Amino acid sequence: MKYGPVVPPARGSLAVVDTMKAAVKNAPAPGRTELRRVPIPAPRADEVLIRVAVASICGTDVHIYNWTDWAQKRIKVPLIQGHEFAGHVEKVGSDVTGVAKGDYVSAEGHIACGRCEMCRTGNAHVCRTVSILGIDRGGSFAEYLAVPAANVIRNDPGLPPELATMQDPLGNAVYTVESANVPGKTVAIFGLGPIGLMALALCRAQAASRVLAIGHRNKYREELARKVGAREVYESNEGLPARIHDATGGEGVDEVLEFSGSEQALRQAIEIVKPGGGIHILGFFKATPTVDINEIVTKGVSLHGIHGRLMFKTWYRMGGLLKSGNVNLRPILTHTFPLDRYQEAMDVMVSGDCGKVAFPMER
Amino acid sequence: MKYGPVVPPARGSLAVVDTMKAAVKNAPAPGRTELRRVPIPAPRADEVLIRVAVASICGTDVHIYNWTDWAQKRIKVPLIQGHEFAGHVEKVGSDVTGVAKGDYVSAEGHIACGRCEMCRTGNAHVCRTVSILGIDRGGSFAEYLAVPAANVIRNDPGLPPELATMQDPLGNAVYTVESANVPGKTVAIFGLGPIGLMALALCRAQAASRVLAIGHRNKYREELARKVGAREVYESNEGLPARIHDATGGEGVDEVLEFSGSEQALRQAIEIVKPGGGIHILGFFKATPTVDINEIVTKGVSLHGIHGRLMFKTWYRMGGLLKSGNVNLRPILTHTFPLDRYQEAMDVMVSGDCGKVAFPMER
Amino acid sequence: MKYGPVVPPARGSLAVVDTMKAAVKNAPAPGRTELRRVPIPAPRADEVLIRVAVASICGTDVHIYNWTDWAQKRIKVPLIQGHEFAGHVEKVGSDVTGVAKGDYVSAEGHIACGRCEMCRTGNAHVCRTVSILGIDRGGSFAEYLAVPAANVIRNDPGLPPELATMQDPLGNAVYTVESANVPGKTVAIFGLGPIGLMALALCRAQAASRVLAIGHRNKYREELARKVGAREVYESNEGLPARIHDATGGEGVDEVLEFSGSEQALRQAIEIVKPGGGIHILGFFKATPTVDINEIVTKGVSLHGIHGRLMFKTWYRMGGLLKSGNVNLRPILTHTFPLDRYQEAMDVMVSGDCGKVAFPMER
Amino acid sequence: MKYGPVVPPARGSLAVVDTMKAAVKNAPAPGRTELRRVPIPAPRADEVLIRVAVASICGTDVHIYNWTDWAQKRIKVPLIQGHEFAGHVEKVGSDVTGVAKGDYVSAEGHIACGRCEMCRTGNAHVCRTVSILGIDRGGSFAEYLAVPAANVIRNDPGLPPELATMQDPLGNAVYTVESANVPGKTVAIFGLGPIGLMALALCRAQAASRVLAIGHRNKYREELARKVGAREVYESNEGLPARIHDATGGEGVDEVLEFSGSEQALRQAIEIVKPGGGIHILGFFKATPTVDINEIVTKGVSLHGIHGRLMFKTWYRMGGLLKSGNVNLRPILTHTFPLDRYQEAMDVMVSGDCGKVAFPMER
Repeated sequence: MKYGPVVPPARGSLAVVDTMKAAVKNAPAPGRTELRRVPIPAPRADEVLIRVAVASICGTDVHIYNWTDWAQKRIKVPLIQGHEFAGHVEKVGSDVTGVAKGDYVSAEGHIACGRCEMCRTGNAHVCRTVSILGIDRGGSFAEYLAVPAANVIRNDPGLPPELATMQDPLGNAVYTVESANVPGKTVAIFGLGPIGLMALALCRAQAASRVLAIGHRNKYREELARKVGAREVYESNEGLPARIHDATGGEGVDEVLEFSGSEQALRQAIEIVKPGGGIHILGFFKATPTVDINEIVTKGVSLHGIHGRLMFKTWYRMGGLLKSGNVNLRPILTHTFPLDRYQEAMDVMVSGDCGKVAFPMER
Repeated sequence: MKYGPVVPPARGSLAVVDTMKAAVKNAPAPGRTELRRVPIPAPRADEVLIRVAVASICGTDVHIYNWTDWAQKRIKVPLIQGHEFAGHVEKVGSDVTGVAKGDYVSAEGHIACGRCEMCRTGNAHVCRTVSILGIDRGGSFAEYLAVPAANVIRNDPGLPPELATMQDPLGNAVYTVESANVPGKTVAIFGLGPIGLMALALCRAQAASRVLAIGHRNKYREELARKVGAREVYESNEGLPARIHDATGGEGVDEVLEFSGSEQALRQAIEIVKPGGGIHILGFFKATPTVDINEIVTKGVSLHGIHGRLMFKTWYRMGGLLKSGNVNLRPILTHTFPLDRYQEAMDVMVSGDCGKVAFPMER
Repeated sequence: MKYGPVVPPARGSLAVVDTMKAAVKNAPAPGRTELRRVPIPAPRADEVLIRVAVASICGTDVHIYNWTDWAQKRIKVPLIQGHEFAGHVEKVGSDVTGVAKGDYVSAEGHIACGRCEMCRTGNAHVCRTVSILGIDRGGSFAEYLAVPAANVIRNDPGLPPELATMQDPLGNAVYTVESANVPGKTVAIFGLGPIGLMALALCRAQAASRVLAIGHRNKYREELARKVGAREVYESNEGLPARIHDATGGEGVDEVLEFSGSEQALRQAIEIVKPGGGIHILGFFKATPTVDINEIVTKGVSLHGIHGRLMFKTWYRMGGLLKSGNVNLRPILTHTFPLDRYQEAMDVMVSGDCGKVAFPMER
Repeated sequence: MKYGPVVPPARGSLAVVDTMKAAVKNAPAPGRTELRRVPIPAPRADEVLIRVAVASICGTDVHIYNWTDWAQKRIKVPLIQGHEFAGHVEKVGSDVTGVAKGDYVSAEGHIACGRCEMCRTGNAHVCRTVSILGIDRGGSFAEYLAVPAANVIRNDPGLPPELATMQDPLGNAVYTVESANVPGKTVAIFGLGPIGLMALALCRAQAASRVLAIGHRNKYREELARKVGAREVYESNEGLPARIHDATGGEGVDEVLEFSGSEQALRQAIEIVKPGGGIHILGFFKATPTVDINEIVTKGVSLHGIHGRLMFKTWYRMGGLLKSGNVNLRPILTHTFPLDRYQEAMDVMVSGDCGKVAFPMER
């Protein structure tokens, strides 16, 4: 794959002096991503410019790549995708304080308004006017990107960039696992994609009593779950509740973490959770499921919708969890490609035979 | 209505010396409740015998009376129904301590096993082997009933029996309202039956910012809501979310309390609740509803199934709330009948043109 | 009292075109506050200029007036004191969005850094580098003041300015009372100054079971407590625990709110609180007290230090509480003076025979 | 040491047929514990008789052995001490259900009334009329002991008795650590006795970011802390806060766990904890300390008294934590002795050069 001619930058830049390599989605159709040289974005007064060390691919990037219904409604091309990354600050805007050139950083990709009730009460992650890196403005599949200084997270120097780039999805997993308060509890995890695997690593790191990892017709990921530390891996099917019933002496599980977006999983979650337990949902559902509300009521169960991660409570907690040394994150990074091999990276993502796929940038 | 001949008592009594008036469901069919003289139950070693001062009718009693599907599966006749009451201890079992003859009491109707994980961790209300007064054993539509001493609640002497009998359903409302932590919040209440009205009184008593009371084709209850203290009463229909959107400046509500068991209500609840808000469900749904889980996830909303009330944390809190003087409970008691007029009382309940209906016992 | 000659403005203004009346503490000694005409401050790019409608006096202002040890260490003269106020936006800085000229507003007086861990995790109120209106920069005892737009709170149009100015201390009371989760509980309040009285109003508004209001040799304030809604007022002395023991049937109280800063009060709080209860402390102690930690441990009690109010969760909740109509705030505003009579206002504050004292500005 | 003549059993037994070995404190003075053969206690109707497999020594047992002020007030001799143990059910009382002969069990040592507000609301651990095994009635330093069936805990078959006996103090540690919610946080632990070491193991098991283990002039225990998993061990002295300040980049710690009972430790805890942080105290203080309440208030810190462990929520959570395999408990058991060598065991305890000391019973 070669880099094409220089094109105007994605929305928002001010002045341009140099160019950079970038993967640009340039037409409203499946695929259609080209490697190009584009102008390096110029940070605004309250932004910083970051030189990307490693970027990584989120499931959302596959939605955009595949041009799904959601992408068709939300995305405006041309767009540099990507919101997961780690890198170093190259330049700071004129009003920026507290971040300096050379800082080793990642960033929260949700850019919230900062003024609404949600933003002012610790719920900026559900601000109604949020815009997102790599979705609503230029992202990290490039040598540089500009982000608001308020969104920058300073990384621990001991955390290598190929793990630091995973903090965005890890934050989702941390927020979900924290919602379930897992130490000492039996936890079932539906869905063994990268975030499900991260949740598994976190549950093991925090002394969950037992973790039941439930996959769906993907031997690669079930095997990966074992590498991450699963001692009990289940294949999802109609007989699952009976098997979990037996495995738990009829008690069921304290908490369920749902990352699969499957109606069957949600139904089974309600069946296997103990009275008084919790179901924590991050998964995205293709169709609106029916839910046995009477069973939820009778068992006194709570169902928590989990969106993004807290800005920035979850990031601080995540930094601490990584520093503990307990979180077995490395096996989840299964593939790396130079940005030039963008197409191969996306092919691996689409196949599902992978954990996290990353782009270390050449220097 | 006359009292029929003496019949053997409902399950569990030991010895019989005297008889009492009781309303006995005596055939597995709709209606079929007869007033009879039956033996006064003899309390076991760990039980007390209570002389009923006032009993009241729960919606569950109407299910049994109407012999609905649920009743057909659960109920064994003959049965003395009723789990709501207030009265005085007449006799105590040989092992009972801490309760004495003459005590003015009510009782928690859920009789839990006391040994399982749920019972030992403050979740006895969702014990899997619970049995319930007036459903699984003889209840309060009689001059006397026997209950385990562990279930007895001592009433405040200043609380009149016709209000004290309402504590069982009020406990449901207290537990739901406590789950929503309403002080200073905007709350929508779906369903204006007795428990919905009690929740309304509790929200007003605890300084909820605004309470949107939402009824469904029942002018009597909408009027009753105003008497209880509602300043904003809505009629449930398809246009409701748009009206609430306007009434809240587009913000929606902080919390929703759902007592209606209506799929439309649940759908609208998800629509009108703010990001980060909560939906607290006590209602029983006739059909399994579809639920827009993606919206719950995107908004970071939690959905709490509420069952019964905490044994006995909710009871202590409820006693305190009643003592505050802020809870406008009295308007909710709309009808009283002597037990002899059981049929009339049930007719009023079935009509829906009522709040709570009670049986003061003649002395 | 007359307004003196024009002096340079307090720190931070940029350009000056007009002058305003202000009460200026102009020497590092007790008293020494003069009424002057000073330049109207010019808001910076991220600030707004507010025309004050009503300002009010905090106990902290009395500390500055009296030039206590704390004031000597913290305050630099000349200073326009005051952080409590309500008014209207007169001018907005060039970068300000979301606040417009004419808006009816108050403001959070703590100006936090916005970048530290505390600020980014919902704890801006304990940011280590906080600066405070009327303490570290010019305040509200003037016709105008400039505040950062991020600190502005939009007031409900139905809330009159003489009550809106009380929101800053009311926020302290709301945060303390929220920490204690009072609905249905028995609460003891030590200290019947303005914040203690506000806490009393809030406890009554939220259906606390009983509120024991405990004053100290100030008949005026004990009487005021009754006007606010206290039904049980106690005089603080050595015999207090015994009287509370009797009044609560030996049970004690669920929660204690401490606003008095008295070692005796803290000792008695630990004595009268139930096992498992909470003590919530806002009071400032002149001397470091001894604390019976063993009793706290044996009873499983928690002791919560309450500082300021959450930025801005408490403000939103407070707005909702005021809108409920349950909070009987008005009796607490006992005196108003024009700013010209600053000296009289301070004399009343120092006497202690008052609730809140306010300065409505003449128009 | 030899077993003396048979004496009457400690309070409560009914009928006696056989005798057992026991260590009996038989005079109100330091030491004075004799090995004797005493009657095996007969369980009452609601009790079970347990054959002890392993018992272990608590610091409280040393207080009784040394006949400290506390012991002089509380203890009535003769007494069989000991409340930590694991064993097998030998006989069940006539009313007991849910526990059977041969069950592998331990027991909660606090025997609560079961009827008061505390007991009925999940706070039985602070019931005012609690009696305790080995303190108020015969305990586990014997071949058999009788305990109420309600207090029995079924042990996981995979948990060896020499670890299962440590669950009583481990429960203290679990409750303290759970109060601090440590995953991802920096935690300081004052006091490296057995419970402090257990808390250290739990913090490491649950992915605390960093654990600062602070000992006091006991090289043995500091070395033991490293074996349990400490990477940062500090010696307590006046310079400690400065060293922690440096080690945390001036930030301090999120949570402090206090097990030392030292006034200096409490003072330093308040100094090193971050704004908004928590101090969780289980330690017993010889003298009433002074506490800088103003600093607690200014920093918005909470101070939690921790008593015992929740009955029985903590036990269930503890079982799950042990099952996770993350808790490195074994190094904490440093010495075992047959009961015949009771004196040697106590000597080791008094020396402080030990972790937990246990008595495996001979078979």
